[in-house]
Amino acid sequence: MSDPRLAIIESRFQKVDKVIAVSSGKGGVGKSVVATCLALNLRDRGFKVGLLDLDFTSPATHFILGVEGLYPDEDYGIIPPLAHGLRYMSITHYSLDEPAPLRGEDVSNAIIELLAITRWMELDYLIIDMPPGIGDATLDTIRLLPKLEFVVVTTPSKVAYQSVRRMILLLKELDIPIIGVIENIVMKHSDYVKFDVANLNLDYLGSVDYDATLEASLGDVDSLIETDFYKKLDEIVPEII
Amino acid sequence: MSDPRLAIIESRFQKVDKVIAVSSGKGGVGKSVVATCLALNLRDRGFKVGLLDLDFTSPATHFILGVEGLYPDEDYGIIPPLAHGLRYMSITHYSLDEPAPLRGEDVSNAIIELLAITRWMELDYLIIDMPPGIGDATLDTIRLLPKLEFVVVTTPSKVAYQSVRRMILLLKELDIPIIGVIENIVMKHSDYVKFDVANLNLDYLGSVDYDATLEASLGDVDSLIETDFYKKLDEIVPEII
Repeated sequence: MSDPRLAIIESRFQKVDKVIAVSSGKGGVGKSVVATCLALNLRDRGFKVGLLDLDFTSPATHFILGVEGLYPDEDYGIIPPLAHGLRYMSITHYSLDEPAPLRGEDVSNAIIELLAITRWMELDYLIIDMPPGIGDATLDTIRLLPKLEFVVVTTPSKVAYQSVRRMILLLKELDIPIIGVIENIVMKHSDYVKFDVANLNLDYLGSVDYDATLEASLGDVDSLIETDFYKKLDEIVPEII
Repeated sequence: MSDPRLAIIESRFQKVDKVIAVSSGKGGVGKSVVATCLALNLRDRGFKVGLLDLDFTSPATHFILGVEGLYPDEDYGIIPPLAHGLRYMSITHYSLDEPAPLRGEDVSNAIIELLAITRWMELDYLIIDMPPGIGDATLDTIRLLPKLEFVVVTTPSKVAYQSVRRMILLLKELDIPIIGVIENIVMKHSDYVKFDVANLNLDYLGSVDYDATLEASLGDVDSLIETDFYKKLDEIVPEII
């Protein structure tokens, strides 16, 4: 704990009111789209919002937002550039799309570095697209950001939910606040996830149907906020904030 | 490299003819279902087949096969139990469904341990459900198993393919043989992935349509091999072997 960056991180988040970590125990459940649209929706509600992409293995928010070649300003640290009204920070500002097989400790270091250099300034909400699963990167982020509250994303798939459930159990064991669970990419309604979430004493925030138009609208924020996906998420947001 | 287990691993794989790693740069693309059904299909073709689940973050093959409470025999190492005619080894034989937030080096250690203790004996094919992404666990497995050839699974989603593509580029950089790419969960045909795979000088093994009946058949091998998913994979298998 002698790393001087750890003390800096706390000060970087002093003016950030609420930090929401969007996470899942499993890839492919739409975590990044949920995180990005949650940030856009809060922006549309008049809040000052930041979006931080910590998914080092599959960074996707820059693709979803349709922003590339953003270069942050340096001024006693890094000021996240504005992307569609969001203060936006992602590892891809630096690494772009090169294959980057970071070793575990390199990932931890990169996360500490990113958290230490970024000057978020005043924000109502910072949305974090979390690293996948419950590996080092997730544990490090939890350790470094004590204000974190989780929104957990799953799909109805029993295989996916099984992994998401392991992550929920871990968060509970670590006493990390969980705002609730969103069931995404629903093709056929079933109460399986809903019941289990209730059994775990967690809030089931809502289910979002599979939206065939979503894929084509990624990269174009104007179409994105017109999708059924976004409209459904808009109904769920009051449960989150 | 002084770990005595590293020398043992080589001997454990001496009688294994071909080791196929089923992998993807992104979760949720159906990697585990493809790996499991590939193993079952090779079994149906009369081969001696092993299946090894190294996906520590989201182990799913035991769920797909519908096997639980399998206990391997110990006899100068661990002999993988038979599951539907497959020699089957998974971390879940030991950890079951507890939340297991393994630190990076613990994951590496667990993989080395699993590879060192398992006596595969004579196999025509060993199919490995690989760890997700291109992190430590993937790199370690590549380093430990020099005979590895990759089948890469993607979906048509541009967000997913972007991550898969990074993984392909890394494998190429490391000179790891890639048998080809399977495009899975196809809902609307597009040549986007197919063209890009050709540009990368790789074999496009085929596309597998989204199969609404697949989810319900997971856990029941008899129904699984009757799905359209399995039948399509059956057409692709000759390209792989």
